[in-house]
Amino acid sequence: MSPEEFRRHGKQVVDWIADYLAGISSYPVMSQVKPGEIRAALPSRPPEEGEPFENVLADLERVLLPGITHWQHPGFFAYFPSNASGPAILGDLLSSGLGVQGMLWVTSPACTELETVVVDWLAELLGLPEHFRTDAAGGGVIQDSASSACLVALLAALHRAGGGRVAAEGVDRRYTLYVTSQTHSSLEKAARIAGLGAAAVRGVDVDPGTLAMDPGHLRTLLAEDEAAGAVPAMVCATVGTTSTTAIDPVPAIGEVCRERGVWLHVDAAYAGVAAVCPELRWLNDGVAAYADSYSTNPHKWLLTNFDCTVLWTADRAPLLGALSILPEYLRNAATTTGSVVDYRDWQVPLGRRFRALKLWSVIRWYGAEGLREHIRKGVALARELAGWIAADPGFRLHEPHPLGLVCFRPVWRGLPAAESDRATLRLMELLNASGSMYLTHTKVSGRVLLRMAIGTAATERQHVERAWEQIRREHAALSATLP
Amino acid sequence: MSPEEFRRHGKQVVDWIADYLAGISSYPVMSQVKPGEIRAALPSRPPEEGEPFENVLADLERVLLPGITHWQHPGFFAYFPSNASGPAILGDLLSSGLGVQGMLWVTSPACTELETVVVDWLAELLGLPEHFRTDAAGGGVIQDSASSACLVALLAALHRAGGGRVAAEGVDRRYTLYVTSQTHSSLEKAARIAGLGAAAVRGVDVDPGTLAMDPGHLRTLLAEDEAAGAVPAMVCATVGTTSTTAIDPVPAIGEVCRERGVWLHVDAAYAGVAAVCPELRWLNDGVAAYADSYSTNPHKWLLTNFDCTVLWTADRAPLLGALSILPEYLRNAATTTGSVVDYRDWQVPLGRRFRALKLWSVIRWYGAEGLREHIRKGVALARELAGWIAADPGFRLHEPHPLGLVCFRPVWRGLPAAESDRATLRLMELLNASGSMYLTHTKVSGRVLLRMAIGTAATERQHVERAWEQIRREHAALSATLP
Repeated sequence: MSPEEFRRHGKQVVDWIADYLAGISSYPVMSQVKPGEIRAALPSRPPEEGEPFENVLADLERVLLPGITHWQHPGFFAYFPSNASGPAILGDLLSSGLGVQGMLWVTSPACTELETVVVDWLAELLGLPEHFRTDAAGGGVIQDSASSACLVALLAALHRAGGGRVAAEGVDRRYTLYVTSQTHSSLEKAARIAGLGAAAVRGVDVDPGTLAMDPGHLRTLLAEDEAAGAVPAMVCATVGTTSTTAIDPVPAIGEVCRERGVWLHVDAAYAGVAAVCPELRWLNDGVAAYADSYSTNPHKWLLTNFDCTVLWTADRAPLLGALSILPEYLRNAATTTGSVVDYRDWQVPLGRRFRALKLWSVIRWYGAEGLREHIRKGVALARELAGWIAADPGFRLHEPHPLGLVCFRPVWRGLPAAESDRATLRLMELLNASGSMYLTHTKVSGRVLLRMAIGTAATERQHVERAWEQIRREHAALSATLP
Repeated sequence: MSPEEFRRHGKQVVDWIADYLAGISSYPVMSQVKPGEIRAALPSRPPEEGEPFENVLADLERVLLPGITHWQHPGFFAYFPSNASGPAILGDLLSSGLGVQGMLWVTSPACTELETVVVDWLAELLGLPEHFRTDAAGGGVIQDSASSACLVALLAALHRAGGGRVAAEGVDRRYTLYVTSQTHSSLEKAARIAGLGAAAVRGVDVDPGTLAMDPGHLRTLLAEDEAAGAVPAMVCATVGTTSTTAIDPVPAIGEVCRERGVWLHVDAAYAGVAAVCPELRWLNDGVAAYADSYSTNPHKWLLTNFDCTVLWTADRAPLLGALSILPEYLRNAATTTGSVVDYRDWQVPLGRRFRALKLWSVIRWYGAEGLREHIRKGVALARELAGWIAADPGFRLHEPHPLGLVCFRPVWRGLPAAESDRATLRLMELLNASGSMYLTHTKVSGRVLLRMAIGTAATERQHVERAWEQIRREHAALSATLP
């Protein structure tokens, strides 16, 4: 495709996206297709000859769109938001257009240095400690996801716990990892990938009310495991769990980690970016004093398209020790002098997209004030929704709900717990099938809760209000059909 | 940013990229900045208030461009090409614009089903076996990089070798991985990440002439290691090594793997896509009969922007066994029925971009014929360059050079080997500093070779010819200054 053809088709695509975003409310939020339907509508064999680009756009519209679940729809309340925004899309487009690969500083110095600048900017915006800055012993790096960030943190923790033995000799003793029932599943996945196995994942009790990690039980477990010959490698504290945004007590957990010399990773995938607001800065309590590593996802609630997770560490040495390898074909003068950062040593893959461009573009377009406004809107709408739920005898609100996620369950009069849970899931299916909203569920203390996560950029008060009215209406209608 | 603002700025960005690509020859290929220079030119603190998007574009032009090494420049001969192309950039733009997250089938069915279709298309285009298709026991999946693909293959291999013990109990015995001195460093990195450690990586001898793995030595090593109590987990054969595009004898290696029941992964990161040409289909020799997994990178030489690696497996069960976890908040009806593919279980991260769009867009725009033409151009230019080098007494050509990479060294009359190598590196620095080309180096049998990888989409005969003339000229000039 020549630059002039690109210019023409590029503008068609920009128009298509602008129209799509302007009209997104007209689509059903959740795709209603059956398994295999999209695949069956596509040719099973690739074209022998090239086709006009218009064919791609036509098939996108005709074949693919019905199979799209619209994450940017104002009625998207499922999982957590995965914000896209204009400046992020355009920053990513610039990255694709430049087509550079930032595995080493030398392979495009601006790719590395802009990343250093924006992760330092973000640390400042979130009030993260000075020692996470690149000029200190630590540093930040963009990863594809919180899963990868947690894996990298675990590898660094293992490197420190084993004094470098893991990289050299492998897992030759019992290393353990501490989480709770509320920790993200990527931590168990990381333990499996890192060769520790699921058996190395130790479950610390949670407070049954707040679902937060019990630091006393952590202390007991660590002592027992060490006495039994295990080497505790890492504790993962979560600030804002996936299920209910529960918040582990990082200062108390950090104190236990310090006593035992265990690496503390703080997974704030969803919630961390909310610290851009001074009134939510308490989310960082204990991070400065205790965290060895910390990660949060601008690609969830901070207007930066997936993928963009930022991982910071207080000490980059064990991270580099775990992941650096320098074959001859990557040797270069800048790396040899040690005067540059080579981010390939901070991640699993070797190659790297120029992802800093989109975060840079977002921070500059919105500014700190614009980012705060976006987070505040989500928190305020969630608080208002929680108020309506609490005031309605047909529903039970799950407390607390400090950020944009509200969990609740409908009351089904006269039904025992298991049947109530089935009715709740049935209600969720009806709501999702209506096309006007998409909710997901979780379980707390064995009971099904509905999750309504507010934070999509397009979501305004009217959308939350309408969704809540529909939930009440459908609940009443479904209740009427039950025995 | 409103849809209308996006429309306006989007067209500015498209124009900027079209102009950039049209004028790319005017930039020095390799950035000439010093470490820290770009960073120093950027504000150390984030803006408090939002800025116009024009500021981002102005700073891109003024501050960042001097720090860009232009991978799409016709004089880019370093590493391997990392092709961008119009349809890939636009496919990626559509992915950003839709902003969907394809971790599960249900979170956007089209994201999963289009991926299934395009990886099956690519398997057909490359002549890969039927059992790699998703409707068979295997299947393909898009990964971010060959590093991640090799790691995932190793995790699947470990799962099979350990009968599921690794995921459950961790690495509790000595698993081994077989590579050569020519295998990509990501395999050692994968062994370290997976908890096997560098010590588990066993070096199989290579033929000193072809640098290809010696299957006889592999057989001996496997027998010795098993006798010593090790559990061989995986052999990695490379089709087109990073250093010199050496090609391991997959059929003979596969025969040894079959005898011993060891997983064979074929890493064809750079070379694999060349099999789109029937006359290069020999690159797949042995893959159908023996490979348990296979990976290649459309993001290197197949016109699809980074990141896009495709990994296929002949049997997806061990891969899913190694990587599947299903927490309550991800449960859904489609997953539970088992009627859909959830690609999150095929990779390290949970979240997923809609990367299939760019590969789909590339295959449709170019068609099989257009892709073949692109590969053939690179192979033909490399062959012509190799002819010039072979005919010039001032240079020594490294044989063989089956694809787009040509390795060679200048002759420095009267200089001993070590000083010759220093002179070769000095020549490379002078050429790279000239701004008209970017070469990298490798070492073979202890001697430095220059690598000239042809395959950037913009590279035509004139660029190779001019580069070769400059290399000869600078070699002569530098020779004259030597004692």
